[in-house]
Amino acid sequence: MNIVVQKFGGSSVADTDKIKKIAERIRSRVLQGNKLVVVTSAMGKTTDNLIKLAKEISPKPEPRELDMLLTTGEQISISLLAIALNEVNIKSKSLNAFQAEIMTTGDFNEARIKNIKSQKIFDLFEEYDVITIAGFQGINEEGDLTTLGRGGSDTSAVALAAALKAPCEIYSDVDGIYTCDPRLHPNAKKLKFVTYDEMLEMASLGAKVLHSRSVEIAKKFDITLYCAATFSEVEGTYIVKDNIEQPVVTGLSVMDNQTQVTLSRLPEDYTFIHKIFSNVAEEGLNVDMISIIDDDNSLTVSFSIIDESKEDVESALHHSLKDLEKWNLTYHPGYSKLSIVGVGMRSSSGVASKFFGALQQIPIKLVTTSEIKISCLVETSFKQQAVEALTKAFDL
Amino acid sequence: MNIVVQKFGGSSVADTDKIKKIAERIRSRVLQGNKLVVVTSAMGKTTDNLIKLAKEISPKPEPRELDMLLTTGEQISISLLAIALNEVNIKSKSLNAFQAEIMTTGDFNEARIKNIKSQKIFDLFEEYDVITIAGFQGINEEGDLTTLGRGGSDTSAVALAAALKAPCEIYSDVDGIYTCDPRLHPNAKKLKFVTYDEMLEMASLGAKVLHSRSVEIAKKFDITLYCAATFSEVEGTYIVKDNIEQPVVTGLSVMDNQTQVTLSRLPEDYTFIHKIFSNVAEEGLNVDMISIIDDDNSLTVSFSIIDESKEDVESALHHSLKDLEKWNLTYHPGYSKLSIVGVGMRSSSGVASKFFGALQQIPIKLVTTSEIKISCLVETSFKQQAVEALTKAFDL
Repeated sequence: MNIVVQKFGGSSVADTDKIKKIAERIRSRVLQGNKLVVVTSAMGKTTDNLIKLAKEISPKPEPRELDMLLTTGEQISISLLAIALNEVNIKSKSLNAFQAEIMTTGDFNEARIKNIKSQKIFDLFEEYDVITIAGFQGINEEGDLTTLGRGGSDTSAVALAAALKAPCEIYSDVDGIYTCDPRLHPNAKKLKFVTYDEMLEMASLGAKVLHSRSVEIAKKFDITLYCAATFSEVEGTYIVKDNIEQPVVTGLSVMDNQTQVTLSRLPEDYTFIHKIFSNVAEEGLNVDMISIIDDDNSLTVSFSIIDESKEDVESALHHSLKDLEKWNLTYHPGYSKLSIVGVGMRSSSGVASKFFGALQQIPIKLVTTSEIKISCLVETSFKQQAVEALTKAFDL
Repeated sequence: MNIVVQKFGGSSVADTDKIKKIAERIRSRVLQGNKLVVVTSAMGKTTDNLIKLAKEISPKPEPRELDMLLTTGEQISISLLAIALNEVNIKSKSLNAFQAEIMTTGDFNEARIKNIKSQKIFDLFEEYDVITIAGFQGINEEGDLTTLGRGGSDTSAVALAAALKAPCEIYSDVDGIYTCDPRLHPNAKKLKFVTYDEMLEMASLGAKVLHSRSVEIAKKFDITLYCAATFSEVEGTYIVKDNIEQPVVTGLSVMDNQTQVTLSRLPEDYTFIHKIFSNVAEEGLNVDMISIIDDDNSLTVSFSIIDESKEDVESALHHSLKDLEKWNLTYHPGYSKLSIVGVGMRSSSGVASKFFGALQQIPIKLVTTSEIKISCLVETSFKQQAVEALTKAFDL
């Protein structure tokens, strides 16, 4: 049985005309001899609208009930798609998370998939050619509905692909993964291949094509992922284990609205540092780039956060550093983070040198590196200049 | 445990402000010491809008998938209501048909409830004060979602009341059962009590307050039903086994858009008559009043249908009566049916006499009677005159 998992994003199922078009696309794949599992997101802005309704009633809606509410969005799109498929004589059945038995943890609003019973889907393929399955949702052990967090439909699709040992195709309004955001750099090139590791770095750095968790699962189960535009025949990007093209640097990610937080002249005491970061983490705040430099028996700690979490971070720091006035604490909002990513960096020297060479005209505020990534923070007014310098230097 | 089942119609949950108001009402009942099961319909026009979406894709949407689509409407309203209740510190949990295990037959779009496992709800009342449950929906043995037909949320509520051995309160924008539609007869009186049997006759005759099936279940399990307006303190109507007030005639129902179909000079052959009605029934068409008169060795058959099914009935008759021109077949559209209903008629004589006395100035086209009902068909131009004569004669 030739099974393929396809996932269509919210803009691809935004209205009934688009749903009919997708049904035609799926039909042609069935006629080529495939059985399809099709995962959809909610239509257009449905999820946002449901959240708006809940917020009209409560500023902090009960998480279990919010998930009960939000899961309706995907149930609407899968049933409409199944209606469209049956209308063009493709035998199709829709399954919500209950019916597909997508078991998750009990963490409402951010559950993680634990397992999927694939046998039911295999059985249904005896009678049906296409099973449409609600993305973004699952059930916990108590039979409560859960959701996987924003963008979770990607994760649903890849987890289903893993359960069915099938390849997974992700369709959206973006036609693939680019070396750099084409809005910033019009000559950005579309990548034919990108590795899981590169994609993980890029997804978390703001390349909004794929939900990170979905890439983690694809990597873990070695599922070939393919990203392409829904309403286009242009070839997209494959996300694979090894990149046969293997350039040293694959892509440049850019993220705005970064605040740099710096504490200087701290005592050389790492339990103190631990306390700072654990207080911030307890508030559920994400700290991104972290750099610590020990200089002349005092520590300087600098890290980046998104601008909008500044107040929360501030109150977490006040909480952990009672006598705050003793420390030299500064906030610099409105920075941009630029990162170059590439698995080839592991085995190639001179990348850092080229990176700093390209940016020598630009004041760099903070730098962090990993095995396959170099990130720096610059004032946003220098962003475009930095993008041009880096794309030129690394031929992106 | 003092359990009450309440049901709120679509107009009662049409927006978040109304949902918040209902939450306050429910809260005051909880503070009085009750545990509540609250069944809701979909918000406002949600179901109509979902049907419209499906029809944009297919003129005849696959029934199983249509139910999958429509059940989302009630899931939205129960989760929003649970959010509203938790917001006012009433511990509440919503259950869809899967979770409440509302088992139905497999007849998509018109399923019937087979059973409800009440133990789960009793268990949840250990922790929660209010369980909101999606009306209108169930699951069949295969785990597919089903719906109970339009107005089915009433049936869900009464079936839950039967399972929990609790009274059932139905709230809508109608504040009770009247002797006659107040739009036709402004002096119509609200009834304090009406019996199940009377309500069954009235529900099927166009009194749109309650879904007939819900009254059947209430009668079978002897559940006290109470109908009242959601946003009003005015007392409503109790639907009970015996009407302690027991007037001879309780109400007058009126239904427009009736077509009278008459076949005359038929052979005195009842297998032939059977064939006519079974052909009509096979098309799923409802025949209402039926009168057959044997006159001088030939039969005259007359029955009423709703105007809009005329063409379908016509083709069913053509099918059963090959040589249609042989028979004298006439259609009279645009009639109105008036029916007086009352359990007191069983033990009271002279009702028919009073009925015909009141209508002596009006040409009556067809009459049928049951133990607790007399119905007649008149031209709609005489409707208002007939309503006034009957309400006066029977003090309605």
